[in-house]
Amino acid sequence: MNSIVKHIAIACTFVAMSDTKRYAIAIHGGAGTILKSSMTPKLEKAYQQILEKAIQRGYKLLEKKASALDAVETAVKLLEDAPLFNAGRGSVFTANGKHEMDASIMDGKTLDAGAVALLQKIKNPIELARMVMEHSGHVFLAGKGAEDFASKMGLKKMEASYFYTEARYKQLQLAKKADKVLMDHTDRKFGTVGAVALDQFGNLAAATSTGGMTNKKFGRIGDSPMIGCGTYANNNSCAVSCTGSGEYFIRVNAAFHVSALMQYKKYSLEKACREVVDHLLPSIGGDGGLIAIDHAGNISMCFNTEGMYRACKSSVGDYSIGIYK
Amino acid sequence: MNSIVKHIAIACTFVAMSDTKRYAIAIHGGAGTILKSSMTPKLEKAYQQILEKAIQRGYKLLEKKASALDAVETAVKLLEDAPLFNAGRGSVFTANGKHEMDASIMDGKTLDAGAVALLQKIKNPIELARMVMEHSGHVFLAGKGAEDFASKMGLKKMEASYFYTEARYKQLQLAKKADKVLMDHTDRKFGTVGAVALDQFGNLAAATSTGGMTNKKFGRIGDSPMIGCGTYANNNSCAVSCTGSGEYFIRVNAAFHVSALMQYKKYSLEKACREVVDHLLPSIGGDGGLIAIDHAGNISMCFNTEGMYRACKSSVGDYSIGIYK
Repeated sequence: MNSIVKHIAIACTFVAMSDTKRYAIAIHGGAGTILKSSMTPKLEKAYQQILEKAIQRGYKLLEKKASALDAVETAVKLLEDAPLFNAGRGSVFTANGKHEMDASIMDGKTLDAGAVALLQKIKNPIELARMVMEHSGHVFLAGKGAEDFASKMGLKKMEASYFYTEARYKQLQLAKKADKVLMDHTDRKFGTVGAVALDQFGNLAAATSTGGMTNKKFGRIGDSPMIGCGTYANNNSCAVSCTGSGEYFIRVNAAFHVSALMQYKKYSLEKACREVVDHLLPSIGGDGGLIAIDHAGNISMCFNTEGMYRACKSSVGDYSIGIYK
Repeated sequence: MNSIVKHIAIACTFVAMSDTKRYAIAIHGGAGTILKSSMTPKLEKAYQQILEKAIQRGYKLLEKKASALDAVETAVKLLEDAPLFNAGRGSVFTANGKHEMDASIMDGKTLDAGAVALLQKIKNPIELARMVMEHSGHVFLAGKGAEDFASKMGLKKMEASYFYTEARYKQLQLAKKADKVLMDHTDRKFGTVGAVALDQFGNLAAATSTGGMTNKKFGRIGDSPMIGCGTYANNNSCAVSCTGSGEYFIRVNAAFHVSALMQYKKYSLEKACREVVDHLLPSIGGDGGLIAIDHAGNISMCFNTEGMYRACKSSVGDYSIGIYK
């Protein structure tokens, strides 16, 4: 494959921390061609409000000594429930007019992980991913089998109408007309959501959830439910959640790659994230971004696209919400 | 999770190479509790014969300047067609009496990869994985969607009876009686098959295929189809194919981990494989093994269980077939 770099725009937000009982959380709502020029003030405000709500809710949990796992699950659930993002309620349509949602979660303390793929009826895929991690004896369940496990666990299922949003349906019609598989918008926007956190006990966690690609066929699974690709957490290094052209993130093992560069090449979190987002992914044609937090509480929110919906908040007073580069 | 090391037995075969136009191939047919005391001479011979056939076939392709990709695909297809191994024809039964097969393949030259999961009717899952890599525009397809893609590609499908073997059916009855999900045998044997190769052009490739776990439910996906977990190849480092307790191989990103240790910690292939198999996997309770080959043509076949069906052959005259420690 040729090394075509479609987006050379690079952006990175870096927050360094230094207190003792530090804790922090970062979230994303997808990266891609997000331009201020194509955004209405009303829509921009709506995005900012839900990002603010999710980051505050996650942060407050950490403040009350909740686990990093609880914080990332709660933040991702809020983003899944918002129709604005391509995950949970706002998931895009597959070619046959259905929804196929994927999610994963990882506990940096134990390296325990849970993942689900090709879900059609689960309100909060991230909740099921956690149940897989804690109660299935497995890591990765998919399709009808995963839905059966959800039933066994008593998890809430929704009718297809719950996941219907007019905007996503229009996207499908456009995609069908063009006979193209689109990321989640005609202008290459990857609407995956995710969260990473460090709690007061020094534990890291990461969570990612997605509705996949508009007009997708053939039961395609992207990087989001793949441990080490879209999601990774390890107390010895960092927690990472990715969003972007999933196939490329899989091929470079993006999330675990950040951790490996920190553990084995002694890179800082920031340098490791930049290596993956600015060099490794573009070298094979991949675009998107990631959020990451290390065991010292440093936060990195990197992307090689025009924008990434993102927010972070830490116990040393850092607080930011961003959309554009 | 506690760090329970169930098997502390360690074994490793290491072959170093030094010629210029070197090429080599290694294969495995699963690791686990494989004891000479519980093997009949007839069965032992049958295993040795199919291992010999597969390694010779793959090696001859390399000799004739075929690609590493062709060599690993051909060797894995032969192992899939043999009812002795838990992949393709000899796949174990799921709880509802079906088969759910997974496979993946990776090209170390381009980092292109293809993976399939939860297949019920495909004669050679590894063939479909390669088609996904080369013709789908995606990396990972699963379930009915993957079978639809196979139909589009004109791939041969088989009736369920093709995959029926009496021994596997008996295993299912035993597992149901005990109400347990078994690896692929009552005595913890992981029957996944795999191959890694270095061709005359310096390209590496890896392939893995499995029938999963007897009596499994809920659409469980193991490490075999997960790029970076059960399979990985990169010309800059190595090609790896794993077999074992899949959930643990996922959580440590076993295959890519070997590569990361070589690339970023400057470990030799042998040291990197030993670190993963002897330390990282046991530290979270994982057992199994892997085969790996590096860009210089060195081969490693490591396992922390009583045995691993394995074979290797190189252009500098190395040739071995092994079953026990």
